[in-house]
Amino acid sequence: MADRVRIAIDAMGGDHGAPVLLPGADISLTRHPDTEYLLFGDRAVVEPLLERLPRLKAKSKIVHTEVSIRMDDKPSQALRYGRWKSSMWLALDAVKKGEADVAVSAGNTGALMAMARFNLKMIEGIERPAIAALWPTIKGESVVLDVGASIGADEAHLVILAAMGSAMARVLFDIERPTVGLLNIGVEEVKGLEAVREAGRILREGQFPYFEYFGFVEGDDIGKGVVDVVVTEGFAGNIALKTAEGTARQFGQYLRSAMNRTWAARLGYLLARQAFRTLRDKMDPRKANGGVFLGLNGIVIKSHGGADAEGFAAAIDMGYDMVRYELLAKIGQSMARDRLATETARLASGAAS
Amino acid sequence: MADRVRIAIDAMGGDHGAPVLLPGADISLTRHPDTEYLLFGDRAVVEPLLERLPRLKAKSKIVHTEVSIRMDDKPSQALRYGRWKSSMWLALDAVKKGEADVAVSAGNTGALMAMARFNLKMIEGIERPAIAALWPTIKGESVVLDVGASIGADEAHLVILAAMGSAMARVLFDIERPTVGLLNIGVEEVKGLEAVREAGRILREGQFPYFEYFGFVEGDDIGKGVVDVVVTEGFAGNIALKTAEGTARQFGQYLRSAMNRTWAARLGYLLARQAFRTLRDKMDPRKANGGVFLGLNGIVIKSHGGADAEGFAAAIDMGYDMVRYELLAKIGQSMARDRLATETARLASGAAS
Repeated sequence: MADRVRIAIDAMGGDHGAPVLLPGADISLTRHPDTEYLLFGDRAVVEPLLERLPRLKAKSKIVHTEVSIRMDDKPSQALRYGRWKSSMWLALDAVKKGEADVAVSAGNTGALMAMARFNLKMIEGIERPAIAALWPTIKGESVVLDVGASIGADEAHLVILAAMGSAMARVLFDIERPTVGLLNIGVEEVKGLEAVREAGRILREGQFPYFEYFGFVEGDDIGKGVVDVVVTEGFAGNIALKTAEGTARQFGQYLRSAMNRTWAARLGYLLARQAFRTLRDKMDPRKANGGVFLGLNGIVIKSHGGADAEGFAAAIDMGYDMVRYELLAKIGQSMARDRLATETARLASGAAS
Repeated sequence: MADRVRIAIDAMGGDHGAPVLLPGADISLTRHPDTEYLLFGDRAVVEPLLERLPRLKAKSKIVHTEVSIRMDDKPSQALRYGRWKSSMWLALDAVKKGEADVAVSAGNTGALMAMARFNLKMIEGIERPAIAALWPTIKGESVVLDVGASIGADEAHLVILAAMGSAMARVLFDIERPTVGLLNIGVEEVKGLEAVREAGRILREGQFPYFEYFGFVEGDDIGKGVVDVVVTEGFAGNIALKTAEGTARQFGQYLRSAMNRTWAARLGYLLARQAFRTLRDKMDPRKANGGVFLGLNGIVIKSHGGADAEGFAAAIDMGYDMVRYELLAKIGQSMARDRLATETARLASGAAS
């Protein structure tokens, strides 16, 4: 294990840019003193901010660029004017060149994905990237993927998602064989999309040393924490994630308005404020900020564009863990051994038919 | 408008059967005295229950059958042994024969859908049925469809879903031109599934007198009530619905445990209990119980299998509204006039290409 984790920050990304991202890095640094930072961005902006963050300054090196990717650029546009020189590209490039262990950006998701694919390339045997999210559950947390990197998935891709997601769960939850469920619209074997059914068969029949296949799960099983890893294609996964975020916000809004309606409610709120704080922490989407790009030759973390410093710190923390506990090596293990099993299962089915 | 609404109840459906369903009907009857009931089920079970519900008894006729559909039957099984004689079939058949205006069942969704299609047949021009749910939002309620009747949808089906869903919104919300959004994973025109993009184009370019096309919406826009009608295919729609239900339950569980942790919190809870009651009501999935089957020559309402009497009453209320405010006539209007517009848009695109 390396003695330090080197983090490349796209310091121009996100809705708020460096004034929020740098304080975020500073927060994460207090939790992980064994980190160093490469900050990609406009020196005229970054340097004065760093002056006010002496702890971060001592661990950082600024790499100057004035080019930044806009939040509403199409990936093709971003690649055209931002390749080789934008803060986003340079952060990824530092990972490619081995100068950093992980790149963290709050920038435009599509552009980040396109640049990451273009620069870092896919891991051999994986054709499409995925974004994995950490989902708070009643039992703790689960990994859910793909939450929007690509639309649609055949059975082979779903099996690869299972292998990659379980590698991430091993990193995060420190369990040997995480359980994996396939998101479907009914728990009966007969239901759901053809590709999901077929992936279910492969996962059920195969031998996967690094995860345990649970079966189908439904939308309401995610929050129950029924499995450690929930696998789905990116369209349904993104809709599930955003719907859950929306519902949590809706509940928070109901709660606030209910607690403001009468004097008794307000007094009750004051008495129970510690409990409400715990609750707010639990439901705080910032704590689970940080989508992990999977399938690339390098670790890339996407923070919500609108994240505040605390949220961006959570995204960096996620990147730190992925490096420290060797995500890429674990994906490599899963892919090498689990793909073998996948092939076996496929061959078996071919022989039987 | 008819002077009364005749409701056919599958009195053997659901997890709890008649002991819960009949009290549910009794609750709905207090809200809608202008209803009459046909109760399909085992007379030996139904009759003694009715004795204790004199108000309902006065408005009901029992139609005896001992055959009921099991909750875990496959649709094909259910059709094989339950056709012509099960309580579910007979309730649908009453609608077919014009003896009832709506059928309400808490039974097996797949079986109910299969029997409804087989017996009532589809409306001309609609090939596949849909299930529409009423979704509580910050602003009130929205119609979301399809939440699981069929998987996948081409652009033509998505346009039909828009027409049917907006007809339902006109019935429920009493607005002339509901707004319609297409569920997608990004608001930019370029994003998302091909069929969703193409449906977006048709809806944008067409003239639809009975609804107003808003554009793409994302998962977190549903709970915000951004549009009156959210259109999606059944796989993503079912996952969204179940994920939202799961998240609401998760939040409720967090809240209960937070309010129980300390004496101050418990005291606060007591003081604010009226506020908590309001909140519970708002988040109560029972209040939004009742999926409406759309696309059939007849009105069919599906209640959650596990619904209690209050929940089943909500499903009956939904059926009542659909009859009273003439859902089928409004769907007919939308289909006739909106399909014309759809065709126009298609032709226009054909001519341009």
